[in-house]
Amino acid sequence: MFITVEGVEGAGKSTCLSYIGTYLKSAGYDPLLTREPGGTPLGEAVRGLLLGDDYAGMSSDTELLLMFAARAEHWASVISPAICAGRVVVSDRFTDATYAYQGGGRGIDPARISALEQWVLGEQRPDLTLLLDLPPEVGRERAARRGAPDRFEKERQAFFDRVRGCYLERARRYPDRIRIVDASQPLDAVQAQIGEVLREQILERGVL
Amino acid sequence: MFITVEGVEGAGKSTCLSYIGTYLKSAGYDPLLTREPGGTPLGEAVRGLLLGDDYAGMSSDTELLLMFAARAEHWASVISPAICAGRVVVSDRFTDATYAYQGGGRGIDPARISALEQWVLGEQRPDLTLLLDLPPEVGRERAARRGAPDRFEKERQAFFDRVRGCYLERARRYPDRIRIVDASQPLDAVQAQIGEVLREQILERGVL
Ligand SMILES: Nc1ncnc2c1ncn2[C@@H]1O[C@H](COP(=O)(O)OP(=O)(O)O)[C@@H](O)[C@H]1O
Ligand SMILES: Nc1ncnc2c1ncn2[C@@H]1O[C@H](COP(=O)(O)OP(=O)(O)O)[C@@H](O)[C@H]1O
Ligand SMILES: [Mg+2]
Ligand SMILES: [Mg+2]
Repeated sequence: MFITVEGVEGAGKSTCLSYIGTYLKSAGYDPLLTREPGGTPLGEAVRGLLLGDDYAGMSSDTELLLMFAARAEHWASVISPAICAGRVVVSDRFTDATYAYQGGGRGIDPARISALEQWVLGEQRPDLTLLLDLPPEVGRERAARRGAPDRFEKERQAFFDRVRGCYLERARRYPDRIRIVDASQPLDAVQAQIGEVLREQILERGVL
Repeated sequence: MFITVEGVEGAGKSTCLSYIGTYLKSAGYDPLLTREPGGTPLGEAVRGLLLGDDYAGMSSDTELLLMFAARAEHWASVISPAICAGRVVVSDRFTDATYAYQGGGRGIDPARISALEQWVLGEQRPDLTLLLDLPPEVGRERAARRGAPDRFEKERQAFFDRVRGCYLERARRYPDRIRIVDASQPLDAVQAQIGEVLREQILERGVL
């Protein structure tokens, strides 16, 4: 089983990932928590190239290929083996983030993203995606308290509005897979919503 | 105009690149010499990931995506602008090397390489490719004298035989673009052959 957590900066993805891990453990699962871009030593090195200022002028095609290079490695060496071993994998971001940031944010044609998604993953997709949705300025405010911004975090308001819009559009398009969580609420209320979705998946739909 | 130089390790590509540069300058051109993987600061960083031992276990899909990420950057920020400015660009390796090493050498389906080539380059291809052909063991012997081997140079004989075979197969398939140079000869004889091809292109076919 493969669960992904999505949303703009400061939505609470990293914070909620450990909550999801704890929740799944208490439900008897053996979750593997990971993140993108990164998730492997090679992926972390690529993440460094993507998020740092040194190569900030890279072309959008380059950025997209690097993202998918890290994702291919993450998939082949971490996610796929763990799923095959019967574990639940929970990833802080995955391909929906590429559609949202590179597609919605940077304006890359989604058909080009889709071509690479197909190239790397074939028909494989997450089973469940938790979209932590909130006004980007609220997330920004939260993230600013966290430390120095990376290259993506320095983008303008309009960029993040497009990112959020693209996420929500995908949630409308894939309602069975992508579940919207109101992440503007206090943390305990956000976690209650996440717990509700996980409980539903485990008990009612029997997905996990 | 875009010229690429291909061949196995030790074939003499780097040595001949400067000869080609000198030749073109004396013929009145303003050549830009570059190389792959690399050719840009980002590309050199990716080259480091590809050739070093740290990430030697990366999946073949990852390797291919990194190659094309470096190539996309090289194309967008170096090759394409120089061609548009009317310069002759000469690159030490390009996409034929991907078919030869990742396809022939590692056994990746050429259709998968072709999909990425199309994604990155559309219909754009080199105008002329000089294939420096020689028995891989001769090249290896030469390269060994040059210094410590990188990750690709440590591959086995059979690997390089497949690489050479794939290069020759492509030369048969694209005879107008790929010209075979017998690189087993002494350097001055190799350079004479290269000069002959360039002269022919400049004088007879008027390509340059
Ligand atoms: N629901 C919430 N309400 C208020 N602050 C939150 C909430 N969720 C997370 N935070 C705080 O906001 C900051 C960003 O959270 P984080 O989990 O790092 O977001 P993300 O990984 O989505 O960028 C952290 O300081 C975190 O403690
Ligand atoms: N035709 C040749 N005959 C003998 N040695 C050569 C010839 N061409 C190149 N060399 C030497 O072989 C070594 C490898 O050449 P190099 O240009 O670095 O090959 P490549 O770039 O194709 O790996 C160098 O030491 C170079 O001086
Ligand atoms: Mg985070
Ligand atoms: Mg060389």
